[in-house]
Amino acid sequence: MINRLVEEIKKKDAPVVIGLDPMLSYVPQRLRDKAYKEYGETLEGAAEAIWQFNKGIVDAICDLIPAVKPQIAMYEQFGLQGLTVFKKTVDYCKGKGLVVIGDIKRGDIGSTSGAYATGHIGKVTVGSKSYYGFDEDFITVNPYFGIDGVKPFVDVCKEEKRGIFILVKTSNPSSGDFQDKMVDGRPLYELVGEKVAQWGEEVMGDNYSYVGAVVGATYPKMGEALRKIMPNTYILVPGYGAQGGKAEDLKPYFNEDGLGAIVNSSRGIICAYQQEKYKKFGEEHFAEASRQAVKDMIDDINSAIK
Amino acid sequence: MINRLVEEIKKKDAPVVIGLDPMLSYVPQRLRDKAYKEYGETLEGAAEAIWQFNKGIVDAICDLIPAVKPQIAMYEQFGLQGLTVFKKTVDYCKGKGLVVIGDIKRGDIGSTSGAYATGHIGKVTVGSKSYYGFDEDFITVNPYFGIDGVKPFVDVCKEEKRGIFILVKTSNPSSGDFQDKMVDGRPLYELVGEKVAQWGEEVMGDNYSYVGAVVGATYPKMGEALRKIMPNTYILVPGYGAQGGKAEDLKPYFNEDGLGAIVNSSRGIICAYQQEKYKKFGEEHFAEASRQAVKDMIDDINSAIK
Repeated sequence: MINRLVEEIKKKDAPVVIGLDPMLSYVPQRLRDKAYKEYGETLEGAAEAIWQFNKGIVDAICDLIPAVKPQIAMYEQFGLQGLTVFKKTVDYCKGKGLVVIGDIKRGDIGSTSGAYATGHIGKVTVGSKSYYGFDEDFITVNPYFGIDGVKPFVDVCKEEKRGIFILVKTSNPSSGDFQDKMVDGRPLYELVGEKVAQWGEEVMGDNYSYVGAVVGATYPKMGEALRKIMPNTYILVPGYGAQGGKAEDLKPYFNEDGLGAIVNSSRGIICAYQQEKYKKFGEEHFAEASRQAVKDMIDDINSAIK
Repeated sequence: MINRLVEEIKKKDAPVVIGLDPMLSYVPQRLRDKAYKEYGETLEGAAEAIWQFNKGIVDAICDLIPAVKPQIAMYEQFGLQGLTVFKKTVDYCKGKGLVVIGDIKRGDIGSTSGAYATGHIGKVTVGSKSYYGFDEDFITVNPYFGIDGVKPFVDVCKEEKRGIFILVKTSNPSSGDFQDKMVDGRPLYELVGEKVAQWGEEVMGDNYSYVGAVVGATYPKMGEALRKIMPNTYILVPGYGAQGGKAEDLKPYFNEDGLGAIVNSSRGIICAYQQEKYKKFGEEHFAEASRQAVKDMIDDINSAIK
């Protein structure tokens, strides 16, 4: 799957992934009203509104981008009804030829990590049959449990030729509370980065490993150091746009081959119609506003890294 | 909710929580056959088998214990059908008067943690209405993002008078890969423990905070140190039984008042009928075997800590 992701990035000349992280307040009033009319102001109504919103955006941008990254928390907040739309969104995007990165940040002791891996990138056995649960192509993983909490994910990557991105340095302001603490003369995130590079060695694709890393765009100096520590690791870069990361900061996350990183934007794209810059599209044309924002993002990043 | 948990522990004289972490292989063949006959060897069939298994165990043990801790990964592995049984199990246990600790180990950047908190211990707003999603009493939280990934959970605790247990030192063998690294002269888990104590100060119940900690039974020396660092923090202790933690190691996790910790067992209870010790019950009477195992666990722990 890492080979396919690289291929799609090259084909579309777009090292970007769009985060499908809907809040109800992002959904145009007209879509909300329509959904509530049909299902009431219920969890089903909220789920329907979000589904129509996602579908509109995916239809408008799928030819421009290699991948999407739905954040499962935004669906989980609506309980089972929300997760039903998460699954529907995963399936719909795969049907459109997109690589799907489930942003789930799971991680636990070995047997429990195994169950998460099974449910998201693997198959579960029921009697003589087996089934994919959520069926994403990649997922994000939390490393706090150490290797035996990560290994079950790596094992399923190998079996299924799917992938993971392990949190190394997250994009949020307080990520340094623990991640930046000095350990044996270097920050913890560098130690985690070394481990990620090492864990990834046994599941190599053509040039990059099935085991990637998450490094926030908001810490470019750290991104530069981590790029060197993990030369064959694909880096998923959140934090561009709404969180403050700038295109000119992104160059160090990429390798000489122009590959090695994929930059995420969520709110900046899916809420484009609410921004001054794209207001001219109007709420009615929210999806077209997102399409223009994707084009602008790709240009912005390509011009900064090339 | 922490006050209620303490009250239930006292009333039942049982500082224990039972992990409802079903694998299909734990479910007696008869229950599996019955479910597959009705729904086929499908995700629905698996979900039904697990539901009947959970229900049998909960009915048999609910009068003995203050709380249950369903591990969401074990349900998530069966996709939406599994999560439907997770929700059904949460509701059923609450109906039986049990405190429910959702073992979900979520954690992300602020806005995303907010969505998880909303979905599991808070209410989501849809138009003029609001709804509980998964509706647990407590959940477990991963601290790797630092304070701004934890604060949204604390905020919802305050609003809803519910609680969280933050991972400090996990029970698995490789938990030391990162958690034990020395930071400013002390191990990272102690630093996390200090933060947990500090974050919990603003959401105190009568004697204990709504913000608890997870510290594995498999590391009693560390448990002793952490008990002192976090005097008003309730400690959720996994790792007793199947993972190797012994009752005699548990004393340091408790305060002088005999409170301050709640010990989890999962496999040791729900799979009791598969153990040599409880084999006499037979597969048919799996729930009675679990009931006896709960009684034995409570005696074992009370005799060690009193």
